[in-house]
Amino acid sequence: MSRIVMKFGGTSVATVERIRNVAAHVKREIDAGHEVAVVVSAMAGTTNQLVDWVREASPIHDAREYDAIVASGEQVTSGLLAIVLQSMGVTARSFQGWQIPLRTDAAHGSARIASIDGETLISRMSDGQVAVIAGFQGIGPDNRIATLGRGGSDTSAVAVAAAINADRCDIYTDVDGVYTTDPRIVPQARRLDRIAFEEMLEMASLGAKVLQVRSVEMAMVHKVRVFVRSSFDAADAIQSGPGGLPPGTLICDEDEIVEQQVVTGIAYSKDEAQITLRRVQDRPGVAAGVFGPLAEASINVDMIVQNISEDGKTTDITFTLPTADQPRALDILNAKKAEIGFATLNTEADACKVSVIGMGMRSHAGVAAQAFEALAKRGVNIRAITTSEIKISVLIDSAYAELAVRTLHSLYGLDKG
Amino acid sequence: MSRIVMKFGGTSVATVERIRNVAAHVKREIDAGHEVAVVVSAMAGTTNQLVDWVREASPIHDAREYDAIVASGEQVTSGLLAIVLQSMGVTARSFQGWQIPLRTDAAHGSARIASIDGETLISRMSDGQVAVIAGFQGIGPDNRIATLGRGGSDTSAVAVAAAINADRCDIYTDVDGVYTTDPRIVPQARRLDRIAFEEMLEMASLGAKVLQVRSVEMAMVHKVRVFVRSSFDAADAIQSGPGGLPPGTLICDEDEIVEQQVVTGIAYSKDEAQITLRRVQDRPGVAAGVFGPLAEASINVDMIVQNISEDGKTTDITFTLPTADQPRALDILNAKKAEIGFATLNTEADACKVSVIGMGMRSHAGVAAQAFEALAKRGVNIRAITTSEIKISVLIDSAYAELAVRTLHSLYGLDKG
Repeated sequence: MSRIVMKFGGTSVATVERIRNVAAHVKREIDAGHEVAVVVSAMAGTTNQLVDWVREASPIHDAREYDAIVASGEQVTSGLLAIVLQSMGVTARSFQGWQIPLRTDAAHGSARIASIDGETLISRMSDGQVAVIAGFQGIGPDNRIATLGRGGSDTSAVAVAAAINADRCDIYTDVDGVYTTDPRIVPQARRLDRIAFEEMLEMASLGAKVLQVRSVEMAMVHKVRVFVRSSFDAADAIQSGPGGLPPGTLICDEDEIVEQQVVTGIAYSKDEAQITLRRVQDRPGVAAGVFGPLAEASINVDMIVQNISEDGKTTDITFTLPTADQPRALDILNAKKAEIGFATLNTEADACKVSVIGMGMRSHAGVAAQAFEALAKRGVNIRAITTSEIKISVLIDSAYAELAVRTLHSLYGLDKG
Repeated sequence: MSRIVMKFGGTSVATVERIRNVAAHVKREIDAGHEVAVVVSAMAGTTNQLVDWVREASPIHDAREYDAIVASGEQVTSGLLAIVLQSMGVTARSFQGWQIPLRTDAAHGSARIASIDGETLISRMSDGQVAVIAGFQGIGPDNRIATLGRGGSDTSAVAVAAAINADRCDIYTDVDGVYTTDPRIVPQARRLDRIAFEEMLEMASLGAKVLQVRSVEMAMVHKVRVFVRSSFDAADAIQSGPGGLPPGTLICDEDEIVEQQVVTGIAYSKDEAQITLRRVQDRPGVAAGVFGPLAEASINVDMIVQNISEDGKTTDITFTLPTADQPRALDILNAKKAEIGFATLNTEADACKVSVIGMGMRSHAGVAAQAFEALAKRGVNIRAITTSEIKISVLIDSAYAELAVRTLHSLYGLDKG
C-alpha cells in the first residue's frame, strides 16, 4: 500500500467526460489498495473567463477579490470529481483550501504556502476516502481565499504530498514525461525515466514547461518524489516501465538514479534581450545600483555576467531579460546613467539562452569545452557564458537556437536509437 | 442615516455591464450617507450551467458536493461587484457564507439559516465599507458550504437584514413591485404601495413570484421591512413616492399601513390537479393515512377540504396538488386503498385556484359571499372552497381562470383609474 497524491490539470478536467476519465485513473489506484488524495485545476478555459470578467470589472483590481473570484473554478472541479467518484462507488469528498486548511501568506494572487494541516486528510484517507482538493488556493492570514498564482496547482499537489507524507506525487499532464530536450526541435529527444530534483529545477526554469518551478523547488526541499505522466493514457491499461511505473518521468533524489548520465538534457529559452553596460565604475554596491531599480520595476533579470573592462580599471556587466521588458529596462538604466556610472550601453534583442544540464557534470571535466568547440564548428557565435556546478548556459543569436540545441543534444549522446 | 440591505437577483448581475448598474445603485445609497450591505445572486445562467454539470456527472449526487459546486456562482458575483464598487471609489469587500459566518442546518441543498454573526458586518459597515455578500449560501455544522435552495438569495438578504438590524431590505428585481394581481391577465392591475407581511405571504405562496415564500416568512417573524423595486430604474434618477420611497412596494407590518383595504389582491395558481376520495372511513388518523405517504414521496399537497359524506357516516376528502405529481399520487393512493379505506377516487386535472387576499377581511363580513355570487353570475362553477382569516380560495376549472381573476379584481375595486 502506498499513499499517493494525483494531480490533474485543466485540460484533463475540461469536460465532465474527461473528469470521468480522471476518476477512472483514481479508481485504479484505489482498487490497487492505495490511499489517494487528488488535486485538481479548474476546467480549461474557466480561469481565463473569470480573469476576463475581473479585468472587465476593473483593469486595476483588489487581489483579494481577484482570488475569491478565480478560486471558484477549482471549487467546481473538485465537487464534480467527487460526485463522479461517488457514482463509481469510490468514497470521496471535496476540500477547498479553507477547509483543509491550507494556510498561505498574505500575498494575494501569488501567495506562498505557509502550512498545511495534513491530519484531517490522513484520517479521511486511512478510512478509504479519496480527498479531492481544489488546487491553486489556500486561506490567507486575513481569513480570505488566497491563490498561488498561475500553475499553482502543481505546487498545491507537491505541498499536500509533503504534508501527508505521500510516497509519490503523480502529475498527470498533456505530455508523457520530461524529455532530454524539446521534441518539437529535436525529434530524437528521449523521455527520461528519471531526473534529479536539481536537474529538473534547471529544466523547468529554462523553459521545459512541464512543471511549475516552485513545485519543483518544494519537491526538492521536502524530498517529494514527483512522477510526471500522461492523463490521456487509458486509465485501465496495465502498463509497467522501470521501477514498476508506467511510461513517465520520475523526479527524485539523485541517490535514486542508478546510472547517472553526465548530461541529462538541453534546455533553451527564447525571447531574451541582452544588455551590456561598459566601463562601469567598479565600486561596492554597483551591482545593486544596476539591478535594484530593475527589480523594483518587476523586471526579471536572468543571466548576469560581469567581467573586467578593457581598460583594466572598470567593469563590464552583461545581463539578459525578457524581450518584452527591454524598452522599460532601457528607460530605467538611461535615467540612472550618472548614478550607476557607466560609459556606454549596448543592447540586442533576439537572443536565446541554451543550457546543458546534468548532475554528472560535477565529476566530469571538459564538458563545457566540448560544448564550445561543437558550437564553434557549426559557426554559432557565443555572446555570453554562465556556468554552475550542474549547468552551462550560453547566450546566442536566436536564429541559431535550433541548430545549437540539436548540436548539443547529439554531442552528449542524448539522441535516441 | 439608515442601515440598508440591498439584494440583486441573477438578471440584475447577468453581465459585468449590469453589475456596473448595480454598483451605481449602491453608490447612490452610500452617497446619501447610508450604511449598506449587498446580497447578490449568481449571474443569470451560471447556476443552470453548474447544475447541468452536476447532473451530467451523476443524476444521483451528494448534496454536499452539489452545494460546493453551485455556491461558486454567487462567489464570483460578490467578488466582481466588490471590484466594480472599489473602482468607483466605494470601499467594499466580498463575503462568502463561511466568512461571515452565516450558519445553516445540515440540510444540504435546501438548508435553513440557523444563525448569522452580524458583528463583523456591522463593524465593517460603520467604517464605511460595503459588505458584498454571496447570497443563497452559508456554512453547515459539518464545516461545508450549504445552499438555501433555489431563490435562497431573498432569504439570505432578509436574514442578513434581521442580523444587522437593518432599517430596510431592498429587493431589486425585474418587476417594479407587487401588484393587486397578475398584470398579464388584468391590465388594470395596480402596483401596491404597501402590503402587510401576512398578505404578501399569501400572495407569494399563491403564485405572485416576486419573492421567495421563506424570505417573506422570515421578514414577518423578524419584522424586517422589505421594499421591492425594479433594478432597471436609472440608478441616479431622483424618485420619490409615498413615504419618501421611489416606485415599488413596501412589505411591512400592518400597523404601517394607514388606509387598509378590505381586499389587497387576487392571486391564482394554475396547473393544479384535484383528487377526491369518497366515503373514507372516518376514524382518527385517517388524514395522516392519506397525506403521510404523499409527503414521503415529496408531493406537495395544497388545498385540503374535508366534509361529511352523503351517507352521513363516512367522510369525503378533496385536495389539490401540482398536475405533474398527479400520476404518482394516484399510484400511491390506489396502492394504499385498503389501508386508507375509501370507496371511490375521482380526479380532475386542469384546475386553478383563485384566492382573494386582504387583512381587512377579518373585520368585514360578506366578502366571501360577494365573491361566490359574482362568480356564479359569470357561470364559474366552484369545485371547492377553503377560507382563512385573510383569504378565500376557490378551486375552479382552469378555462375560467382569467375570467374569475378579472371578475374578482373588479368586484373589490382593485382596478386602477
